[in-house]
This record gives sequence, structure tokens and C-alpha cells, in this order.
Amino acid sequence: MKRKNVLAVCVVLSWLGVLAFLAACSPPPKAEPVRTATIPDDTFDPAVWGKVFPLNYDSYMKTKDPKPPLSRYKKGWDTDLVMYDKLSQFPYMALLFNGWGFGVEYNEPRGHYYMVIDQLEIDPSRLKAGGACLTCKSPYAPKLMEELGPKYYSEPYMEIHAQIPPEGRELGAACINCHDNRDMSLRIHQPPLRRALADMGADLNRQGRQEMRSLVCAQCHVTYIIPKDAQNKSIDVFFPWQGSKVGDISMENIIQVLRSDPGYLEWKQNVTGYKFGFIRHPEYELYSRNSTHWNANVSCADCHMPYTRVGANKISNHNVTSPLKDGMRACQQCHTESPDWLRNQVFAIQDRTVSLMLRSGYACATTAKLIEMAHKAQAAGKTIDLELYNRAKDLYIEAFYRVIYAGAENSVGFHNPTEIARIMADAIAMAGMADGLLRQALTAAGVSVPREVNLELAKYLNNRGTKPLNFEPHKEFPDPFGIQERLIPRAAKGIQTTVKGEPGQTPTPATAEEKK
Amino acid sequence: MKRKNVLAVCVVLSWLGVLAFLAACSPPPKAEPVRTATIPDDTFDPAVWGKVFPLNYDSYMKTKDPKPPLSRYKKGWDTDLVMYDKLSQFPYMALLFNGWGFGVEYNEPRGHYYMVIDQLEIDPSRLKAGGACLTCKSPYAPKLMEELGPKYYSEPYMEIHAQIPPEGRELGAACINCHDNRDMSLRIHQPPLRRALADMGADLNRQGRQEMRSLVCAQCHVTYIIPKDAQNKSIDVFFPWQGSKVGDISMENIIQVLRSDPGYLEWKQNVTGYKFGFIRHPEYELYSRNSTHWNANVSCADCHMPYTRVGANKISNHNVTSPLKDGMRACQQCHTESPDWLRNQVFAIQDRTVSLMLRSGYACATTAKLIEMAHKAQAAGKTIDLELYNRAKDLYIEAFYRVIYAGAENSVGFHNPTEIARIMADAIAMAGMADGLLRQALTAAGVSVPREVNLELAKYLNNRGTKPLNFEPHKEFPDPFGIQERLIPRAAKGIQTTVKGEPGQTPTPATAEEKK
Repeated sequence: MKRKNVLAVCVVLSWLGVLAFLAACSPPPKAEPVRTATIPDDTFDPAVWGKVFPLNYDSYMKTKDPKPPLSRYKKGWDTDLVMYDKLSQFPYMALLFNGWGFGVEYNEPRGHYYMVIDQLEIDPSRLKAGGACLTCKSPYAPKLMEELGPKYYSEPYMEIHAQIPPEGRELGAACINCHDNRDMSLRIHQPPLRRALADMGADLNRQGRQEMRSLVCAQCHVTYIIPKDAQNKSIDVFFPWQGSKVGDISMENIIQVLRSDPGYLEWKQNVTGYKFGFIRHPEYELYSRNSTHWNANVSCADCHMPYTRVGANKISNHNVTSPLKDGMRACQQCHTESPDWLRNQVFAIQDRTVSLMLRSGYACATTAKLIEMAHKAQAAGKTIDLELYNRAKDLYIEAFYRVIYAGAENSVGFHNPTEIARIMADAIAMAGMADGLLRQALTAAGVSVPREVNLELAKYLNNRGTKPLNFEPHKEFPDPFGIQERLIPRAAKGIQTTVKGEPGQTPTPATAEEKK
Repeated sequence: MKRKNVLAVCVVLSWLGVLAFLAACSPPPKAEPVRTATIPDDTFDPAVWGKVFPLNYDSYMKTKDPKPPLSRYKKGWDTDLVMYDKLSQFPYMALLFNGWGFGVEYNEPRGHYYMVIDQLEIDPSRLKAGGACLTCKSPYAPKLMEELGPKYYSEPYMEIHAQIPPEGRELGAACINCHDNRDMSLRIHQPPLRRALADMGADLNRQGRQEMRSLVCAQCHVTYIIPKDAQNKSIDVFFPWQGSKVGDISMENIIQVLRSDPGYLEWKQNVTGYKFGFIRHPEYELYSRNSTHWNANVSCADCHMPYTRVGANKISNHNVTSPLKDGMRACQQCHTESPDWLRNQVFAIQDRTVSLMLRSGYACATTAKLIEMAHKAQAAGKTIDLELYNRAKDLYIEAFYRVIYAGAENSVGFHNPTEIARIMADAIAMAGMADGLLRQALTAAGVSVPREVNLELAKYLNNRGTKPLNFEPHKEFPDPFGIQERLIPRAAKGIQTTVKGEPGQTPTPATAEEKK
């Protein structure tokens, strides 16, 4: 009996052990956020959505905060609270954009929270397209479009902006831009993307969740055209994706659409007198064209809104930002390397991209000055060979669109390193050919062309707009490989540029003569 | 008692179960190849090594076999058994290399087995450097260097080749090139790499196994200089790595070394009359300069000699080849994606690289023809502005070295996609600037320059060498993005080029006049 008792106790204890083991191994019940209320239809105010989804809301509101200065070429809204002037970073842009709001004030964006605020604070020359400018900045845009009809596009920005209810006038991308208020599923809010997808024969209703996690971003992170009527008033906003398909929106097709209708040309470049369309932040286009990450089915949100643990919950981080500014956490979801290692890969790509941005930008700027010389010669009664000139003009236009595509895309090449290099190299090739034909035409017309064309950048960089803004030499990005300085010497730029070890000089404001 | 017996049986059965379980889980004793003999020092014949390591030897001997035609731009020794003429693939090379053996016969290599055989079969113009040519082709080279002294470099190739024992005269890279015969550890056999590493301050004895798995390849897959004496006889072979360091051998530094001594200029380009150095297969240099795979500590052997199961053994595959020709198996050691998916990533990079190879190659070829025009004008007594000309010459030389670097590197960009794009874009920028200055100088001298310079490629492509060789239009690589044809129209190339749908024409052999 005694032995039997011992055996019974052993069996019971073993069973208790097994139970304890199972209890320790099974996960605790999953924490589910308590849903305290429903969100009424057409709720714009994120704070109302935030009552139901406080963690997501909190992270969304952090887009207001400055970020640590960890990106080499996208300073954005760093903790130094400085606005980063892209024209000082890349001075050739000031020449190329002269005649256009972007040539007056062109800052790095500060993040989602500031989308509309940035518009309200920027030089008014940037808002000339009218209400159309609100299309991807304000969540009220679809409502305004519907209520105001064609006036939405054509009337002055401030007038259309005033139609937004007072509490929403500073509101940028909000919950309603991407989410269905009933079940939080992803939804396209802004009309132009719906139309663009239809143009490419893509069915929005058949997109999976992973596709939607990129498409909600593609509502705004794309380039678009604001066509003009005969009075140069805006009449529409649409994406130049006709003839392309999802996953293959080429730069070549975008240019073809841009050049297909004079009504798509929104501004006149002062240096050349040519009318141009414009390229805005083509992140989705570049990323989706046969890039490694896109091909690996990585969505925009995977990298820019990585899953984050908050207490017992896991949310996608709505403090949308570059992985560089977030300790490379997003990359580490798939890549096991250290943050430092990962950062080095990004910089390796971005350094090379910036080097080619400078190469293509300055090649294009030089060609623009040669075109200016040709026009001056013509005005002085000299004969410019039109066969050479017309070919050069065509090459210049093609090069210019490629240069501004690379400049407007916000990943400094990372979204698709070899594709952006290809585009910039083509720009360099085209600008270079145009340069040769123009030098030939000018020389034949008896114009003396200097070996290095003076770009007169001070004229375009200083005394800009109502503030006025000036070149800030310490913000300029030098070529990480030192090649650019060997091709266009400092003197030919026509500005004081930063040189290592030399203190930055205060730029001389342009004279009235230069400013004109 | 009965119960006791049952209990005893249970315990015994449980123990048996546990033992059976352990036996099932523990691995079978590892298969070790039987070592049947030792390999004497200085054994060149791989068959002798093969007696001890028959599996490795068998896979090594497969480098003799043709490979499936799975690479888009490196046909090599395809199962079609055609020799691939690089000058037909990239016709601009025929113009640029005219005056040099590579402009006569330049084939894609067939693999390790054919290293020396390829030399014996090629047009003799390729062997003018003398014995020096054997330096990375024959395992006997170190022995010959020691025995023959300076003669090894300077005497005619066939004379030095005849010093190799008859049984080794067709032997390419062999076991002795990479292995220590006593313990099979990796060892550097060819002297130039030892010197080059010392030049960079790297200690060969402190390299880990993974580093050695790249360095053994770097004995040959590198560029080198064959310096010449006053009689244009070869006097040495060395790598232009002075001023660089391991992991950072830049194209810029290589050019600086090449241009630092007139003795490093090995040949004269016919079109321009300029003396040039040469760039050979800089795989190690491109790969090791901040590429993603290099930074991930992936060695050459990891991708080109992946571990392979042969029966119960696992060996590194000595049938060295591109992962493209081996079902992407090497990639799948780290990447879980399908072979098709992986192949698409390689092609995405290579398509873009080939597009820029054409862009930079034709830009350089056009500039060369403008230089030729300038020389003709000077010969006719016209005055070419030397300030413009000298700057153009310098830019052209810089562009040329970059173009041939990209053309000689055997990965079509894959080893370091953004670095090769950067190098080619710089070439395009430099050739473009030179083009402009030359057009200006020529026009000022009263020379009429056509809008599109005729490259007269037929003159360089047809009737080459002793065989003679001709342009094979069906082998030409068109621009995968269709840009090149928009920049240099077909007529300006001066050859019949393949056009989709049109049958290839037989090229007209060059006339005696043209051939000169």
C-alpha cells in the first residue's frame, strides 16, 4: 500500500508538472484594444478617430515632432529646427527653376503634419496653380472638388482654402485619407489615383492588402499634371500614367504624356524661355518599376510605417518617416544586419545618386545657359543653325525632365538605385549632346563661347521672393566623389560655394539688375 | 509480482524507446573522403591532385563543358558552341580598340579550362605583350618568372610558352593556383597579387578563410599594367592599386596610376593617335568597393563555387561559372526566392548596365571621331584652339578608361550596380563635355561638323586580323530601353545593324583603303 501511495503521488505530481509546463508555454490571451465608440462617416478630425484608436493617433501626431538628424541628404525637420532649402543644397536647381515657384522657395518637406502648413508658410509664388494645389495636401480636397466643380482648380489657392471649415484648415493627411471609418480597412480617398489606376486598366477593388499598403501612399507620393486652359488657369489634376501599367510606369512614358499636349505645360523657364510641365515626388513610380524591394512585395508602409509594440499592442507606426531616422528598425524586420551596416548600404547608394544628381543637374544648367546665349545671338541679328538648335532643344527638354525627376524623388535613389542612375545618365548624355550642338551653332554664328560657361548662379540663388531668400553655402552638398568640381570649376558656377576649411561667406544680395 | 513485472517491462521499453529516439536523431557518422595518397610539392597536373580529391577534380574538369545559354549578356561557351565576338556585341568597342589586339579579336572567355587555349587560338595581335601575357593564364608563370628573369616579360609569347613542359602547355588555372598541396588550404600562387597587397599595406598572412576565398580569385580577376621599356618591350606585370586599400580600390585611383607614367601606356589608339594603358577584367576591384554583397562578407567562391552535394560528400563546386548558368543555386544559399525571381533581379540590373554601356561607349566613340577630325584639320593647316583641344583630350582620356572598365568587368554591373552606373555616367559626362569643346574648336577652325558624326564602324568591324573576322549583326546587343537608337541614329553608326524583324545582312568586307 505504501508503495502504491508513493506511485499515486508520483503520477499526480507528474501530471501537475505537465499542466504547469503547458500553462507556461501557451501564450497569454491576446490584448485587444477596447473599442469605445464608432467613428461617424465623413469625420475629418483625426482626434475623433483617435478616441477609438488612441495608440495609432498618438503615433500619427508625432509627425509634428522633429526627427533626429540621421539622414545625410534628406534633412527634413531635423531637431535643429532649420528649414532645408533645396536650392542651396543643389544650386543648379535655382537656375533650372527660375521663372517658377520652385525657383523662389523650395524646402525639404517637414512631414505629414505640416503638409498644408508648409503651403501656407511658403512664398505665394508656389501657390499659383490655385485650389488644385490642395489636391493631395488636404483631406477636404475631394469634398471641395465635388462642391465647387471647375472652380476648385482654377480659383486662387487662398480662396479655395478658405472654403475648408476653420478647424480643418491646417490639417494634412488624416485618418480619412487612407482608412474606412467603419472597419479601418484601407481605402483610396483622393480621386486622381482612382482615375489613374483606371487609365492603366487596374481594378482598385481587386488589390490585396499589401498592394493597398502602397496605393494609399500613391495618392500623393506620385507626380501629376495640372493642365491649363487658354488663360493659364488650372482645369484638372491627373497622373501621367496613360500607356503605362502597374509596376511599369516608366520615366519615358511620363515624359511622353507631358510632351503630348501644350496644355500640360505649366510654367516658363526664364533662362531658356521654354514652357515646361513639372515632375512632383514620383516615389511610387520609381519604386514600383522593377526595384528589388517592390519585386519582393514590400509595401511603402512596411518600410515607412513598421509595426511597433506599444505596451501590449502592436500597431503600424503612423509617425511616417525614413528608416534612417528611426534606427533602421524597419529594415531589420527582414534584414538581420546591424543598423550601422544597413545605414552604410543606404549611404553607398545615396552618395552615388547625389554625385550623379550634380553631374546631370549641372550639365543641364550649362546647356540652358548655352540656349540663352543662342537666343541672345538671335536677338542681336545673328543666324543660329536651326537644324542644330532644334535637335539641341529637344535633347535639352528630355534631359531637363529626367533631372527634375531625380531631384523631386524623395529617396535620393534608394527606392530604385539602378533605375534612377539610368535616368540620370540618360540626362547627362542628352544634355551633353545638346551642349555640343549649341557650341557648334554659336561658334558658327560668330559668337565666342567660353570654355567654361558661367552659370551666374548668384543671380538665381539670391534675393528670392518676398522674404527674400538667399543662398546658404553651408547647406550645399559637395560631390561625395569629388568629380563634379573637376568638371565645372568653382569660378564657373558664379557663386561662392562651400570649401572645406573655409568659413562660409555671407552671400551678396543680388542687385536689381541681376534679380530681373 | 505480476504488477512488478509489468512495471519492469514498461521501464525497459521506455528506455529502449528513448534509445531508439536518440539513435534516430543523432546524425550518421560524417562521410569523409578517403585520402589515398599525398600530392608532391610543385605538382602542376590537376589529374595528380585529382587522384586524392576525385570529386573536386571532376567538377573542375567540367569547366571544359559548354554551359546552358541562360545568361542574357555573357554568352561565353554556350551549348551552341559559338565563340561570342564582343566587338559585334558592342560595336563601339571596335572603333575604340582599333590599333590594339582587342580591336582585332575580342571574344567572350570560355571558362577556366580554356584560359591558355583561348590565347593559343586567338589572333596573334593579342599576344604582343610577350610572355607577360601568361602571368595570370598559366600556373607555370611564377616558375618561368623565376627561371627566366626579365626575359619572361619581354620575349615573344610563343617563345616563353615553349618553356612550359609539353604536358602543361594547354593548362589554365589549376589546383596549384589556389591550394596548398599539403593541406588544401588556400594559397596565393601568382606573384603580382602578393606585391599588390603589400602595396596597399595588407598582410596576406592575416587574411581569414573567407577573405582568401576572394583573394585566390583576385590573382587573375583584376586589372593590371604591363609597363614597357623604351623599345616598347614588356618589363613587368603589376596591379595599379597604389594609393588604394582593400575594399576601396576606386576607378579614380586606378586611372591616376595609369596616367602617372608614360611607360604604363601599352598601345596607340588609331582613331585619336593617343597612347593608352588598358583595363582588364576588374572584377575584384569593382566588387570590393562598397558593394552590398561584399559588405555582407560574401566571397567570390560563395557565388561562383557554391557548395554542392556529391553522393555523401559536400564540396565547393570547381565548375566555376555564373549563378545564371547554374539555376541560381548559389543565390538560393542565402535568398529564399525562386530562381525565376532571382534571375529577374539580375536582369533588371544588367539591362540597365547594358543601356549605359552603349550610352557611354558611343559617346566616347563620337568624341574619338571628333578628335580625328581635329587632327585632320591640323594636318590640313587649320588652327585648332589648343585650350579647347587640350581640355577635350583630357576629358576624353578620362572617359575612355571608364568606358573600357565597364566593358572589361565581367558581371555586366551585377558585382556593384550603382558603382558601375556612377562610373559610366561620369564617362558620359566627360565625353559629352569633350564633344562640345571639339565641335566648338572645329567650327572655329572652319571645319564643317555634321550634326551626327559618322562613326564609320564598318571600317573597324570588318576584315579584322588574320582570320579575318567580320561584324556579325545578329550578335549585337540593342539598348533594352530603346534610348540609344534615339541618340545616335542607325545611319550615323556606319554599319548595318540588326533591326527586329529584318533579316541580318552579310557585312561587306572592308576595302584595302578602309582597312588601313
